[in-house]
Amino acid sequence: MWRRYWPALLAALSAGYGAPALADGGAWLLNDPPNKLLKDQYGVELTPEWLEHVQRACVRFGRGGSASIVSADGLVMTNHHIGHDEILKLSRAGRDLVENGYCAATRADELRCEDLTVFVLWSIADVTRQVNAAAASSASPAEANEARRRAIARLEAECEQRSGLHGEVVTLYRGALYHLYQYKPYDDVRLVWAPAFRSASFGGDVDNFEYPRYALDAAFFRIYENGAPLKPEHYLRWGRAGAQEGELAFVVGHPYQTQQSLTVDHLRFLRDVEYPTLLRRLWRREAQLLNFCDRSDELLRIGLSDLSGVRNTRKAFTGYYQALLDPAVLRRKIEAEQALRAAVAADPAQQSRWGDAWDTLKAALDNYATFQRRYSLLEGRRSPLRGDLYGLALRLTRYAAEREKPNEERLEEYRDPELELLKREVFSTALIHDALEHDRLQSALTCLAEELGGDDPLVVAALRKRSPAERATQLIAESTVADLETRRILFEGGLKEVQTARDAMIDLVATIDPAARALRRRYELEFEAVERDAYARLAETQFVIQGQQAPPDATGSLRLSYGAIRGYGAAPAQTPAFTTFAGLYERAAQRRHAPPFDLDPRWEAARPRLDLATQFNFITTAQVIGGNSGSPVLNGAGEVIGLIFDINLDALAWNFAYTDQTARSIALDGRGLVEALRKVYGADALADELAGSGG
Amino acid sequence: MWRRYWPALLAALSAGYGAPALADGGAWLLNDPPNKLLKDQYGVELTPEWLEHVQRACVRFGRGGSASIVSADGLVMTNHHIGHDEILKLSRAGRDLVENGYCAATRADELRCEDLTVFVLWSIADVTRQVNAAAASSASPAEANEARRRAIARLEAECEQRSGLHGEVVTLYRGALYHLYQYKPYDDVRLVWAPAFRSASFGGDVDNFEYPRYALDAAFFRIYENGAPLKPEHYLRWGRAGAQEGELAFVVGHPYQTQQSLTVDHLRFLRDVEYPTLLRRLWRREAQLLNFCDRSDELLRIGLSDLSGVRNTRKAFTGYYQALLDPAVLRRKIEAEQALRAAVAADPAQQSRWGDAWDTLKAALDNYATFQRRYSLLEGRRSPLRGDLYGLALRLTRYAAEREKPNEERLEEYRDPELELLKREVFSTALIHDALEHDRLQSALTCLAEELGGDDPLVVAALRKRSPAERATQLIAESTVADLETRRILFEGGLKEVQTARDAMIDLVATIDPAARALRRRYELEFEAVERDAYARLAETQFVIQGQQAPPDATGSLRLSYGAIRGYGAAPAQTPAFTTFAGLYERAAQRRHAPPFDLDPRWEAARPRLDLATQFNFITTAQVIGGNSGSPVLNGAGEVIGLIFDINLDALAWNFAYTDQTARSIALDGRGLVEALRKVYGADALADELAGSGG
Repeated sequence: MWRRYWPALLAALSAGYGAPALADGGAWLLNDPPNKLLKDQYGVELTPEWLEHVQRACVRFGRGGSASIVSADGLVMTNHHIGHDEILKLSRAGRDLVENGYCAATRADELRCEDLTVFVLWSIADVTRQVNAAAASSASPAEANEARRRAIARLEAECEQRSGLHGEVVTLYRGALYHLYQYKPYDDVRLVWAPAFRSASFGGDVDNFEYPRYALDAAFFRIYENGAPLKPEHYLRWGRAGAQEGELAFVVGHPYQTQQSLTVDHLRFLRDVEYPTLLRRLWRREAQLLNFCDRSDELLRIGLSDLSGVRNTRKAFTGYYQALLDPAVLRRKIEAEQALRAAVAADPAQQSRWGDAWDTLKAALDNYATFQRRYSLLEGRRSPLRGDLYGLALRLTRYAAEREKPNEERLEEYRDPELELLKREVFSTALIHDALEHDRLQSALTCLAEELGGDDPLVVAALRKRSPAERATQLIAESTVADLETRRILFEGGLKEVQTARDAMIDLVATIDPAARALRRRYELEFEAVERDAYARLAETQFVIQGQQAPPDATGSLRLSYGAIRGYGAAPAQTPAFTTFAGLYERAAQRRHAPPFDLDPRWEAARPRLDLATQFNFITTAQVIGGNSGSPVLNGAGEVIGLIFDINLDALAWNFAYTDQTARSIALDGRGLVEALRKVYGADALADELAGSGG
Repeated sequence: MWRRYWPALLAALSAGYGAPALADGGAWLLNDPPNKLLKDQYGVELTPEWLEHVQRACVRFGRGGSASIVSADGLVMTNHHIGHDEILKLSRAGRDLVENGYCAATRADELRCEDLTVFVLWSIADVTRQVNAAAASSASPAEANEARRRAIARLEAECEQRSGLHGEVVTLYRGALYHLYQYKPYDDVRLVWAPAFRSASFGGDVDNFEYPRYALDAAFFRIYENGAPLKPEHYLRWGRAGAQEGELAFVVGHPYQTQQSLTVDHLRFLRDVEYPTLLRRLWRREAQLLNFCDRSDELLRIGLSDLSGVRNTRKAFTGYYQALLDPAVLRRKIEAEQALRAAVAADPAQQSRWGDAWDTLKAALDNYATFQRRYSLLEGRRSPLRGDLYGLALRLTRYAAEREKPNEERLEEYRDPELELLKREVFSTALIHDALEHDRLQSALTCLAEELGGDDPLVVAALRKRSPAERATQLIAESTVADLETRRILFEGGLKEVQTARDAMIDLVATIDPAARALRRRYELEFEAVERDAYARLAETQFVIQGQQAPPDATGSLRLSYGAIRGYGAAPAQTPAFTTFAGLYERAAQRRHAPPFDLDPRWEAARPRLDLATQFNFITTAQVIGGNSGSPVLNGAGEVIGLIFDINLDALAWNFAYTDQTARSIALDGRGLVEALRKVYGADALADELAGSGG
């Protein structure tokens, strides 16, 4: 029965459907590693011990971001840009750790982060059977999706109760598999060392997603347990020999999302609906923030974090969008999908099982397209309505309503296992700047009008007969959610307190949130449910033929990828794999030391002491995507040789398909880092601690 | 018959329909000045001699921009930002007039502008009867519009043939009146003096549309006739006493466009369709250009002009848009329109004559909304497809086709009177920068895809199976329209040369232009024709009741406005009317002399010599809008006391309704200008020439 379409399917798969187009691609599961490929290509075998060791030495930094434990005393390495929020929150008047960096002279000087939890993935369990069993008797995809959501919530809560481990069910292959990831949480995390922002982000938004680079994008924290440094069972050893040109390198971290398995219709939806809508908002906000920051040094200081965030996202999505406009990318996808569909159609049994999945998904996409703009505007994770004050009012309002419901009926982010993180967000003491809030609110309210029209009932209700600027002023003047005591009262008081609060921001949430919730519900029922069902069925084609050989799309969970340390291009336009300290000084001089190309005075002073030929940054072909920032780069022995902090523009196409022509991930070299710690920062104790962990 | 709705109409008009909401508003015709208002409010009378003198001393600078003749030797005063393109074109390697400014030591050193014509409005004739007569037998608004277009083309061509004067028919009251403006053109114009760009634009894009200001936004040119300085019959005398707080001030110039007479439906169309579409493109392009300019000093130099243009337009349209989101603005319009409609409806004869105008217009707007995005994308004056190379290829292609037609059948900008200007554009020797062209082209091609979708046939055809970046590279590599000889061959060779040209950019125009032309045709037939007919009829209501008391919306033709020199607000948030030289130095210090707040070294050096209390910039309540830049500010005696160069953000609302609470136009003070000429620039001859013209 299978034989009939076997050749066509093989052709389809080798042309790129599901499987990475080339070797080295993919973000692999640690419990389903690419053993065969590694053996065939590199003669390397990853033992179960190697995998468990690496898994338990890696760290999820807060809600996103990657990191790793790199010493016997719980030292954690990540990017400065991943630790940036913590470093900012630890700054005080007269102690600007972003501007100046930090180096704890002794353990006693290590600064405890106010509201940070990091997670170590302890074990993984396949719960596909349990999740699907819950949905077995459902009458429709929507009902099944609901049933699965409840089952997932139950499994996560049970994990917490049973083991004390933080449980998260990861949906793999877009719904074909469900794995329960069980994390050890650590909430006493202290800052050990950070460079000045200007060194960590040398080249700033200008050089972001570019190469060559010269950034010291690293920071060290330490996990404490019971008031003492953690003595971890597993930590990564430092690779003293450093990174070598051509060497096989592994990257282990938390890539947020890839979309390599999307159908062609789905890619077209991204290209023609989702991305243009998002990009429009990003360009707009980027220009607004640039103008905000232009107005004074003070506003620049306040607005820079929002600005860099928007620029980073915008750069990523322009890259994704350009990849979808590249006819070669879409053509490969179309050819592979046509071959696969033809193969399935050729077999009546398979046709009846999988054949309608593409068209069902297309219908759901067409329907979603009719409300995608409004949904993403009011409820999407990049909704413009996500300023500090609105965000606080929204969390307080929703928490009051959700806490009344049984755990598994709640919105995901208000379920029991999430409450600790929610509390930290609600009671964050991070400064709220009125000027920036005003700018965000005016922008968001205007955006509603621009996109929905000035007479849209929601716009009219949100503006309360005021212009966006006047309304923003009023919202700030007549809200006290910036006040911690107000937050405490509303958080503890529940529905009654929230409903009787005379607070303009709570009031605005009350105006908008019913529409936002309704759209979320609609999205889940009409799109997500169908999408999950369709992709689960499409994944089956792959399992049957390939034995699940291709890894699932990234999902923010721990993954392993691999590739070579390799430059690209040929002389005279060759880009070598490594940069050196010498290049840093040259680039700064070339840009006349103007920000973001200005050097920390410590680097100016250290210049005579440094070996300028020291390797500083390097590139690899290992597939990396947003969320991988902070991932360690390991050699075959599992030793740290670098620290991922970026990818180049061409690598944004990895979101859809792997290529290694010019696409590269970018890392800080481990030797450059240690050399800088010793000779620029005099952080010998830290350097010794890393060296002490060396193999 | 009239009495029945008289009271209601009066109420409507006093509430703001058509007429400016408050005194001092409006851009008045020089042949229909606000004599009664001026007499009642200020006891001032403008004699026909005063008006003719001022009219013939004012200058239209190129296609837009205002200026005036200010000496017996044909000296012309305008803004630096109006003369900027000319100053740029006169720059050479080693002679950067933008960076350093210019001061002609003698008349022989005055630098002739390469392709600039300035125009003096010599006389105005009412041609309403002729234009309407041509359309009298038309069967539909569309046909009537066509007939009027042809009549206008004929009248303009006849004017040129008859008198040698450049004729332009100005459509007033959106179609109720047609006036033939007859201009004396002067094409030998020479640069006399310009400050450094940094002084002219002190505060740059940051302070644009803001006040207080400290900008020396002035430049002087001289008209030559037969190789000698023009001895004008009329020139404005310099007001030695300068501008005084509270003084009545006149502004005479070429406001480009206002929209005070639009119907409520039309305002909603702007708010919900036209402005969001435009703003989206502007935010996007602004962010892109900021990133382009960020990449290096060289790219900043190349891209700054595009960037400033986009920022200026974006700031203006965000201001217009915010005004339309101000409920007070729209409410006044709604109330006035409702009252007027009720009054008209109350009289059967009037109802049958005017009653359907609002709904007819609304239907046309609804229809236009269905193709406005595509029209503005491909053919609107702010189409992203307006880079240098595409613009050249478009002009060459269209000229080849249009020259085959009778004059009055051509697209307006290819009619005989326009050909001189067309030639100058086509044969401009201004540098074309590949890097900027690439950025523009990639942006424009991507914009087509973002807005029309990646599978739109036009997008597919325009991209030729390449990504936008690759296609942009190819277009530049495989086009020679940057080459003047190519342009000459195509311009002179006509259709045959263009059709057989093997030029990628000509080819891209051939792909896009049929669609662009079809959209323009559709716009003209389905919208513009109906719009003109509807507004012509709506204007009748005003003429009948008010005797045409309110001035027509601005149309880029010469207008007079008036108001007081006055600050606003109360202490401690008071904004005084005047700034001084002292404020310039304070602002520069406050922003640590970083661009755009850096001082020309001449200003640093001159500081001890200057009277720091000298008035530098000031504000007035006289209504001004884009196009008024470069307008002289006159006192009651018709003497120059200032030079308009900007308005504040609140004054952008003047586009829709006049207000004088906080809305202000911004001018350079005549005394500050002369003081700077003498003491900062040592331009005593120029200062003497101005003083010599003093009253």
